[in-house]
Amino acid sequence: MSIRVGIFGYGNLGRGIEAAIRQNPDMELAAVFTRRAPETVKINTVGVPVYHADTVSDHKNDIDVMILCGGSATDLPVQTPTLAKLFNVVDSFDTHAKIPEHFENVNKAAAAAGKVAIISVGWDPGMFSLNRMYAGAVLPEGKDYTFWGKGVSQGHSDAIRRIDGVADAKQYTIPVEAALEAVRSGSCPELTTRQKHIRECFVVAKEGADLARIENEIKTMPNYFADYDTTVHFISKEELERDHSGIPHGGFVIRTGKTGFNKEHSHVIEYSLKLDSNPEFTASVIVAYARAAVRMNQRGESGCKTVFDVAPALLSPLSAEELRKTLL
Amino acid sequence: MSIRVGIFGYGNLGRGIEAAIRQNPDMELAAVFTRRAPETVKINTVGVPVYHADTVSDHKNDIDVMILCGGSATDLPVQTPTLAKLFNVVDSFDTHAKIPEHFENVNKAAAAAGKVAIISVGWDPGMFSLNRMYAGAVLPEGKDYTFWGKGVSQGHSDAIRRIDGVADAKQYTIPVEAALEAVRSGSCPELTTRQKHIRECFVVAKEGADLARIENEIKTMPNYFADYDTTVHFISKEELERDHSGIPHGGFVIRTGKTGFNKEHSHVIEYSLKLDSNPEFTASVIVAYARAAVRMNQRGESGCKTVFDVAPALLSPLSAEELRKTLL
Repeated sequence: MSIRVGIFGYGNLGRGIEAAIRQNPDMELAAVFTRRAPETVKINTVGVPVYHADTVSDHKNDIDVMILCGGSATDLPVQTPTLAKLFNVVDSFDTHAKIPEHFENVNKAAAAAGKVAIISVGWDPGMFSLNRMYAGAVLPEGKDYTFWGKGVSQGHSDAIRRIDGVADAKQYTIPVEAALEAVRSGSCPELTTRQKHIRECFVVAKEGADLARIENEIKTMPNYFADYDTTVHFISKEELERDHSGIPHGGFVIRTGKTGFNKEHSHVIEYSLKLDSNPEFTASVIVAYARAAVRMNQRGESGCKTVFDVAPALLSPLSAEELRKTLL
Repeated sequence: MSIRVGIFGYGNLGRGIEAAIRQNPDMELAAVFTRRAPETVKINTVGVPVYHADTVSDHKNDIDVMILCGGSATDLPVQTPTLAKLFNVVDSFDTHAKIPEHFENVNKAAAAAGKVAIISVGWDPGMFSLNRMYAGAVLPEGKDYTFWGKGVSQGHSDAIRRIDGVADAKQYTIPVEAALEAVRSGSCPELTTRQKHIRECFVVAKEGADLARIENEIKTMPNYFADYDTTVHFISKEELERDHSGIPHGGFVIRTGKTGFNKEHSHVIEYSLKLDSNPEFTASVIVAYARAAVRMNQRGESGCKTVFDVAPALLSPLSAEELRKTLL
């Protein structure tokens, strides 16, 4: 029997989940839940109902795992603990500093309800976290580096759009090649924020806006840009739409470390992602963990989990025998 | 209390295990077992006993996990099932085609004895297998590629040494850069053996040997060299010792795949290793899995496992809270 998946929230991530489910024959989309008027939400899968979020408890028995597609700022801190009382759930909570608190809240709800909740799934947190953890366990004496990009940062793009005189904008985070090479050399460099990443901004200004002032406001914006080498390009609305409509992202997790009785040998472990679509890749990771959530719950497990707690085999539709035979 | 580790077999891998244990403060080397006369085996750790392999059952209660450092051809198929009756064990069985059979034999022994046995641990099989599995679960529609090198192949070096007139030899397996680039492009190329790797051989000939004949014998050797572009360099014994005494290795696992309703987006997942010492890195992976074997057994688990069955958190000395706080 297929795993019946629910999608809670239908934006970029929700649409990515919908597409990813179609690539996994052992899963089916059971329903989409939205806070909008359901009849106004047109989804891509024929024959699947769209319900209002307020009715979600009516569907408790129709869904094996609910995937939460809301934002980390205000949606998930409320939604994940609430829905973990009713369903196995997976979320992509990505406010790193607040993960311990979110974990505790979700764990209480999921444990009491006998459900499995897997939080902070995606690529960072998610696949990058896994690679940091594996590499650290294997090379205890070493140093980790994470680089992001080249990719679109929605938060930084939004920050530019809030500047007076800006009509639209897209910001790319780009790792500095020389920093990557220094890390790969095994020299364990100490790198400043500025040395690791540059920020490139494509801005559509409103007619008559003061471009010099906008550029200055971007480059001096605290936290977002002031600590980076930032370049600003003013382009037309048409150019933005033509050349910058995608949501690519990616990055690198590198650990270098030493082994040997006298630490005489160096090793480099590198994991990298190059993604055409950040939300679709994030969704693909989440769907694999949704499979694991259902399997763990079927085995009698409950409570909050992270990628660190999930045995890799649980992610795959292949049997243990097939995995050993074909991938080991 | 420290995890008490036994080493069974004291060659390159055994010495690597010994060094790796010193980098893990929660583990201690309890004893080394050898088939040689124990008094002839000098180990690097002060105060640790060396016993004859035949006495291993006398030490059943002194060792929490035994690491088997024998070869896959004849040692491990016998040793792992035998020792899994007495100890939690970890091995690095790497004959890919025989893993299912080895698994069944070890599983019977370990399950009956209530012990945990983790087989085929290292980097390939091992970390590379994990990365193939994770990437395949995340991108179900895609294609996997594994490249090895640049690194020393012991099997190929040995094959050259068996040729008449050869005093010594070292063979490097080298991935073809153009093939790597083609894979990373997402074009899903079909690559022949010859297109993926080249083989570079450094050979010390005996005095008066026919170099042309040796070179020809190498290049036409079935399975080992005939399907590859192979280069042969004749060098002096001193040059071999000076420039080719290390045991570096490494490689790349790359998966490219598509997502989206119309498969319109491409993604590249790449994992790579660059290792100064193949046996020491393999040993470092094994030691992390030895920790996991003990923890799984303490939880009441038994039977044969592979890297696919081990939840990542079990590898780390950090607590679940610390992992979530620092690495997620």
